[in-house]
Amino acid sequence: MGPYEQLTAHFARHEVLTGISGALGWDQQTYLPAAGGPGRGEQMAILTGLSHELVVDDRVLGWLRAVQEEGGDDPLRLAACRNIGRAVHRSRALPVELVQRRAQVTSDGFTHWMAAREANDFGRFAPALDEILAIEREVAERIDPDRPGYDVMLEAFDPGTTAAQLRPIFHRLGEGLGQLLAALDERPSPPTLAAEVAPDEQLAWHRRLIDRLGYDRAAGRLDLAEHPFTVRAGPRDVRITTRVQRDDLLGGLGGTVHEAGHAMYEQGLPSLPGTMVGEAASLGLHESQSRFWENVIGRSRPFLTWAAQELHDIVGADAPDAESLVRGALRVQRSLRRVEADEVTYNLHVLVRFELEQALVDGSLAVADLEEAWNEGYRKHLGVVPANPRDGVLQDVHWSGGTFGYFPSYTLGNLYAASLGVAVQEAVPSLWHDVGRGDFTGVLGWLREQVHQHGHLFDAPELLARVVGPRDHVEDLLDYLWSRYGAAHGVQRPG
Amino acid sequence: MGPYEQLTAHFARHEVLTGISGALGWDQQTYLPAAGGPGRGEQMAILTGLSHELVVDDRVLGWLRAVQEEGGDDPLRLAACRNIGRAVHRSRALPVELVQRRAQVTSDGFTHWMAAREANDFGRFAPALDEILAIEREVAERIDPDRPGYDVMLEAFDPGTTAAQLRPIFHRLGEGLGQLLAALDERPSPPTLAAEVAPDEQLAWHRRLIDRLGYDRAAGRLDLAEHPFTVRAGPRDVRITTRVQRDDLLGGLGGTVHEAGHAMYEQGLPSLPGTMVGEAASLGLHESQSRFWENVIGRSRPFLTWAAQELHDIVGADAPDAESLVRGALRVQRSLRRVEADEVTYNLHVLVRFELEQALVDGSLAVADLEEAWNEGYRKHLGVVPANPRDGVLQDVHWSGGTFGYFPSYTLGNLYAASLGVAVQEAVPSLWHDVGRGDFTGVLGWLREQVHQHGHLFDAPELLARVVGPRDHVEDLLDYLWSRYGAAHGVQRPG
Repeated sequence: MGPYEQLTAHFARHEVLTGISGALGWDQQTYLPAAGGPGRGEQMAILTGLSHELVVDDRVLGWLRAVQEEGGDDPLRLAACRNIGRAVHRSRALPVELVQRRAQVTSDGFTHWMAAREANDFGRFAPALDEILAIEREVAERIDPDRPGYDVMLEAFDPGTTAAQLRPIFHRLGEGLGQLLAALDERPSPPTLAAEVAPDEQLAWHRRLIDRLGYDRAAGRLDLAEHPFTVRAGPRDVRITTRVQRDDLLGGLGGTVHEAGHAMYEQGLPSLPGTMVGEAASLGLHESQSRFWENVIGRSRPFLTWAAQELHDIVGADAPDAESLVRGALRVQRSLRRVEADEVTYNLHVLVRFELEQALVDGSLAVADLEEAWNEGYRKHLGVVPANPRDGVLQDVHWSGGTFGYFPSYTLGNLYAASLGVAVQEAVPSLWHDVGRGDFTGVLGWLREQVHQHGHLFDAPELLARVVGPRDHVEDLLDYLWSRYGAAHGVQRPG
Repeated sequence: MGPYEQLTAHFARHEVLTGISGALGWDQQTYLPAAGGPGRGEQMAILTGLSHELVVDDRVLGWLRAVQEEGGDDPLRLAACRNIGRAVHRSRALPVELVQRRAQVTSDGFTHWMAAREANDFGRFAPALDEILAIEREVAERIDPDRPGYDVMLEAFDPGTTAAQLRPIFHRLGEGLGQLLAALDERPSPPTLAAEVAPDEQLAWHRRLIDRLGYDRAAGRLDLAEHPFTVRAGPRDVRITTRVQRDDLLGGLGGTVHEAGHAMYEQGLPSLPGTMVGEAASLGLHESQSRFWENVIGRSRPFLTWAAQELHDIVGADAPDAESLVRGALRVQRSLRRVEADEVTYNLHVLVRFELEQALVDGSLAVADLEEAWNEGYRKHLGVVPANPRDGVLQDVHWSGGTFGYFPSYTLGNLYAASLGVAVQEAVPSLWHDVGRGDFTGVLGWLREQVHQHGHLFDAPELLARVVGPRDHVEDLLDYLWSRYGAAHGVQRPG
C-alpha cells in the first residue's frame, strides 16, 4: 500500500469510531436509562481517546508528507490532505495537559451555567466563563499564534471563512433586516396558529412528509428527543429526532423538516472512507441545507398547502387549513429568545452574539460587562430588552462548553440557503408547482448534484461560488425575505 | 500503582469496550435501520479487535505473574487472577490466522445453515458443519491438548463443569423425565389457552409485572425484538427485549419474565471493575436465574393468580382468569421444537443435543450421519420423530456458529433453579403467600445475597454448593416437576 492508501485506511478506522460515538450519542438522547449516564460518559471518553490517538499518530505526518512529495493534482487527494492536515494540526497543537484541563473546565462550565440559569443570576456563571474564555484563547493561540483567535475558533466550524469577511456581511444584514422589521411593525400582527393535534398524529404526519421530501428512512430513523438533532451512526445510518407538542404544530413541523434537511445532506454525501472528503464542507453549509428545507421550502405556500392536505388525511376535519398554517408560519415578532425566533428576526439574534463573542475573545469586552452588553445588543438590534438573564445572556448553552465561533454558522446557513433558493428556481422552473404536489425529486436532485455529492472537496465559500456564481448572499437573503414577508404582510421594499 | 491495580485498570477498559458492544448490539436488534447492517458490522469488528488487543497485551502476563509472586489469600484477587488468566489463556492460545479463519468459517456457516433451512435439506449444511467442527476441534486442541475437546468447549460457558460430571446427570434426568412423561401420557391433555390481548396491552402488563419483580427499569429498558434477549450496555444499564403476539399471552409473559430473571442477576452483580469477578459465574448459573423466575415462580399458581389480576386491571373483563393461565402454563406435550417446549420436556430436547454434540466432537458420530442420529435421539427420548430437517436437526442456530458445549447450560439452569427453589422456600417461609400478593422482595433479596452479590468469585458448582449444600440437583428438579405437574394433572410419583 502507498502512503495515501495507508493514510486513508487509518482514517477509515477513525470514521468507524466516529460512527460508534454517533450511535451511542443518539442512544443517550433517546433511550438511555436514567442510571446509565455515568457509564455512557466513560464509554464516550474511551472512544474520544481512541480517536485522538489515531489523529495524533506520528505515522500520519509521515504519510501526509509522502503524499505531498508524490505530488500530482488529483483533487480528491489534495482535498483529503488538506482536510486531514487541518484536523491533525488542530489536535497535535494541544498538549495533553491542556486537552484535559479544557475538558474539565468546559464540563464544570456546563454545571455552573445550569446553576446560574436555575438561580437566574449571571454572576454565578461569570467566573466559570472567564476561565473558559481564557482556555479557549490559549487553545487558539496554540493552534495558530499568527491568526486572530476568533478566526481560529471559526475554522473549527466553517473552514475558509474569517471574521473580517463576516463583519461587513453581518453589518449589512443587520441594517437590511432592521428596515424590514420596521416596515412590518406598521402592519397588524396575525394571530398565532390555534390548533391542537395529538403528538402521535403529528409524528405520523412528519414521517409521511419526510418520506416524500426524500429522507431515506431505510437508512435512518425519526425518534423523539428533548432537543431535536441529526446524527450519523454509521455509513448508511443517519438518524433524526424531533419534539412534538400538542399545541405547537408549526414548531414541531419546522423542527422535523429542519433535521430532515441536515439528514438528506448527510445521506447525499459521497462515500469516500478515510479521506475526510465524504463529510460536510462546513457547519454553515450543513445549516444551509436544514434551513433551505425548513424555511425556503417549508414556509412556502405550496409546501404548506400540500402538508395541510396530508394532515387532513390523518386527522380529518379537525386539521387546520392551509391558510392558517401559512399565516402562522409567516408571523414575525421581535422577541428575546433565539430558539423561538421567526425567520426574519433570527439573524439579528445571531448578530448580537457574533458581536459579543468577538469582543470577548479579543478582550475588548470583559465577562463582567457581558450581561449589560447583551441587553444593549438586544435593545439596538431587536428593540427589546430581556427582563432577566434567563431570557437573556444565559439562554444559550454554547459558551458554557467553550463553543465560540459557532453562532455565525446559523446565519451563514440562511445566507447560503437564500442564494441556493435563487439558483434552484432557475434550474428547476417547475419547482413551486412540484412542491405543491408534494414532489421534491427535482429540488433534492439538484441539491444532491450541485452540493451534496461534493462533500468537502471544496471549502464552503468556494463550493457556493461554483454552484451559484458570484452572488451577494446578503442581497439574496434580503430579497427573499422582503418578497415573502412583504407579500404576506402587505409591505414593499423601499426602492 | 502495583501490578494488581495496573491489571484491573487495564481490564476495566476492556469492560467499557464490552459495554459499548452491548449497546451497539442492542441497537442492532431493536432500532437499527435496514441499511445500517454492514456499517454496524464494521463497528463491531473494530471493537472486537480492540478488546482482543487488550486481552493479549504482553503486559498482562507480567502483571498476572507479579500478582501471583506477591502471594496473599485475598479471595477477590485470587478469583480475579483465575478469571482473567482463563480469558487470557484462551485468547493467546489462538494464532491470528486461526481466529480469522474461524470467523470466516462460522460466518459462512450461518449463511449455509440459513440456506439449508430454507431448502429444508440438511445435506446443504453438512459440508459447512464438517468444516466448523474441524476448526472448533483445532481451537480446543490449541487451548488445551490434554483435556477432552468437549470439556474445553464447555469451559467457555460453564467453567468448572466437565462432560464426565454431566453424563450421569443427564442420564438420570432423562430416565426420570421419561417416567413423568409416561405418567402424564395417561392423563387427558388440557386445551391451550385461547385468549387474545392487544400487543400494547401485553407490553404494559409486562412492564407492571417486571417492575414488581424487582427489575430496575431506571437502570434498564424493555423493548421489542424478534428474539428476546438481555444485554448489558453499561455498568448500570441492563436492557431486556421481548416479543408479544396477540394470541400467545403465555409465551410472551414467559419470555419477559425469563429475561427479567437474567437482568435482575446482572443488576445484582457486584461492581468490581476490571476484575472479571463482577460477572456471571457461568452461563448455567445465568440460566438458573432466568428459569427460576420464568418457571419456579412464573408458572406457580400464586404468581399467575396475581398476574391475572394485574392483567384484569389493564384490559378489564376480557382478561382470561387465573385458572386458564395456570392450565395453559402447565400443559405438557411431546414436541419437536426446543424453543416451544414446555418445562417438563425441555431438558429432553437438551439431552438429545448433548449426546449428539459430544459424539460429533469426539468423532464417534460423522456429520453425514447426524440427521439420522438426531431423529433417533428424538424417537428415543421424546417419542416423536421430525418429518423434516427444519423441524429437526436444522432447528437451532448454535452449531452453525461453532457453538458446541452451550446447550447443557440450559439444563444446568433448570437443575440449579430447582435446588435454589428448595433452599429459598426454607429461607423465606412466606414465599408463596408473598408471591400471591405480588411481593417479591423476600425472594429477590435472598437471591441477591446468596447468589448475585458473589459474581464470579466462585465457579458455579462451588457457589451452588455454598448456597444449597450438598444437594442432588437431579432429584430436586424431578421432585419439583412431579409435585407441580403431578398435582395439576392428577398423577403421583411411583414410590
